[in-house]
Amino acid sequence: MNQALRNRQWIFARRPEGQLGVEHFEMRETASPAPGPGQVLVRVRAASIDPAQRAWILTETYRARLEPGEMMPSFGLAEVVESNTPGLKPGDIVEGNFGWQDYAVANPRHVMRRDATQALEHLIHLLGITGLTAYFGLLEVGRPRPGETVLVSAAGGAVGTLAAQIAKIGGCRVVGVAGGAEKCRWLTEELGLDAAVDYKAGGLREAMKAACPQGIDVYFDNTAGEILDSALSLMNQHGRVVCCGYVSQYDHAEPGGGGPLGVPGTLIAKRIRMEGFLALDFDKNRKSAEAALANWVKTGALKAPVHVVNGLENAPQALIDLLAGRNLGKMMVRVS
Amino acid sequence: MNQALRNRQWIFARRPEGQLGVEHFEMRETASPAPGPGQVLVRVRAASIDPAQRAWILTETYRARLEPGEMMPSFGLAEVVESNTPGLKPGDIVEGNFGWQDYAVANPRHVMRRDATQALEHLIHLLGITGLTAYFGLLEVGRPRPGETVLVSAAGGAVGTLAAQIAKIGGCRVVGVAGGAEKCRWLTEELGLDAAVDYKAGGLREAMKAACPQGIDVYFDNTAGEILDSALSLMNQHGRVVCCGYVSQYDHAEPGGGGPLGVPGTLIAKRIRMEGFLALDFDKNRKSAEAALANWVKTGALKAPVHVVNGLENAPQALIDLLAGRNLGKMMVRVS
Repeated sequence: MNQALRNRQWIFARRPEGQLGVEHFEMRETASPAPGPGQVLVRVRAASIDPAQRAWILTETYRARLEPGEMMPSFGLAEVVESNTPGLKPGDIVEGNFGWQDYAVANPRHVMRRDATQALEHLIHLLGITGLTAYFGLLEVGRPRPGETVLVSAAGGAVGTLAAQIAKIGGCRVVGVAGGAEKCRWLTEELGLDAAVDYKAGGLREAMKAACPQGIDVYFDNTAGEILDSALSLMNQHGRVVCCGYVSQYDHAEPGGGGPLGVPGTLIAKRIRMEGFLALDFDKNRKSAEAALANWVKTGALKAPVHVVNGLENAPQALIDLLAGRNLGKMMVRVS
Repeated sequence: MNQALRNRQWIFARRPEGQLGVEHFEMRETASPAPGPGQVLVRVRAASIDPAQRAWILTETYRARLEPGEMMPSFGLAEVVESNTPGLKPGDIVEGNFGWQDYAVANPRHVMRRDATQALEHLIHLLGITGLTAYFGLLEVGRPRPGETVLVSAAGGAVGTLAAQIAKIGGCRVVGVAGGAEKCRWLTEELGLDAAVDYKAGGLREAMKAACPQGIDVYFDNTAGEILDSALSLMNQHGRVVCCGYVSQYDHAEPGGGGPLGVPGTLIAKRIRMEGFLALDFDKNRKSAEAALANWVKTGALKAPVHVVNGLENAPQALIDLLAGRNLGKMMVRVS
């Protein structure tokens, strides 16, 4: 059956010297692969566009650095079209790292079956890695208490929008950092944040200080860089910095210069905990997290906006747009 | 009574442009102050010489930055000579921040009575701030498990010697970082560490890697700087960095350049927790900590060497020697 299927793949073709561009990718067309014994053939339905993909190109992370010539990896959702395993059948929706391509062969141990009755947008964002990252990062790593001030950077992004709103649900004063007046207005007017700081407007530390008159208790850091430096200088004693991402450092040729000022000096003076995490580490609590997230959306307490780009051919541009902050909420490419 | 007493005080006279020298201090002689209602007059017996004193000169820490003209603050032990409060009587030994001087007037709320039958060396080190810092920092912040690898920087210093040995008692593989072959030999031969790395010998990261073949699970950081950078690059998943001090950054005119490489990137990739602390935050557990420390010394499991310098007049030089690493264990000035 699969011999007849044409498979488009985006190859990471050359390493960028500076900012990532479409010229760093090349589309290749092959026949779709055949599933071996125990494997499944899936058709990719949606690709999750994540800042981490830029980090994979830049440096070794929790995975080896991506090398030119490799297919661009990408989390996503796919539909089983052919199965050599009793656990999965055609029509099942599975989650996994399928890459930027139309078809993939997967080992059932590396995919997870999802509820095929749910919208793809819902599965890929709220009930996917981004939703779980926001939920576990804020609640398990940041552990805010009601009345505390929570600062969230990249607050208009996929994880940021959710983390900020979950902190609001928890009774915190929540301040978002984002680029541009329009996005900042959206954060306060549409998502209900208490204040927003436009990092592109200049005077970052002063603006942050004005928006956080009681100091910062939890900083949910998606950006690192200057925003982290400023936030650290405004942290309260026993504050917590949730290290979720460092998107300000991704879009360069090299993995950044010096680290944040105030580490470790401010960490000691103010007894601050700074902690990195991956949502996958909390997998045993996934069910209860999904239930809480779904319930908040149902009651209207949480909004989970998804910015959908149609067509696999637009995947590189979608990643570039994401890195430039041209999205509100989660960025997703609908592949089929 | 006190009018007749001559009081020598070391004044922090001018801010260093680079390394600290004796020329940055001036000795002043005054009459000893008179205790007011509810206060005590104490005679300083011992001054604790701590790397943190260099940080107080450099920058704002958990206390405001020291300004020229102020008396040099210093934790220490003192004997009550005149008391206007029923809770303290002449002959009592108290702990507090009495500064570099012969006599001090103190408010009983700011001092703590200690066991006058114990040696001053014991009270100021093992059962004082340095002992508690090593104990709480390693066990409450680092939380090593038996079999894990613990790396300790400034391992020949007051906190480092104790933290490293407590980790050994806990069944860890313990590696110390110190300056010079002689100090390194002392760490393995006298203190029983599994290995020592001489940071002055060059090839720091490679030497550290060779000494930690299983990677690093807990890094007890007293230095920051290049040692922290290298340690971070060798940390295992779910590792912990105990931020205790940053002595490599203290002896400069400015509070250092960039922070550590690998923050926050490595923290995320390896899910590392990096946490600052002060021993004072764990004060409610002080009694049990002191009991454990005293018992380990009694059984011979723990050595608590103290380097004693005689005479208040030698206090500045003692601090300079400490910053240059010319001490094995705790540095203390015997004032009277």
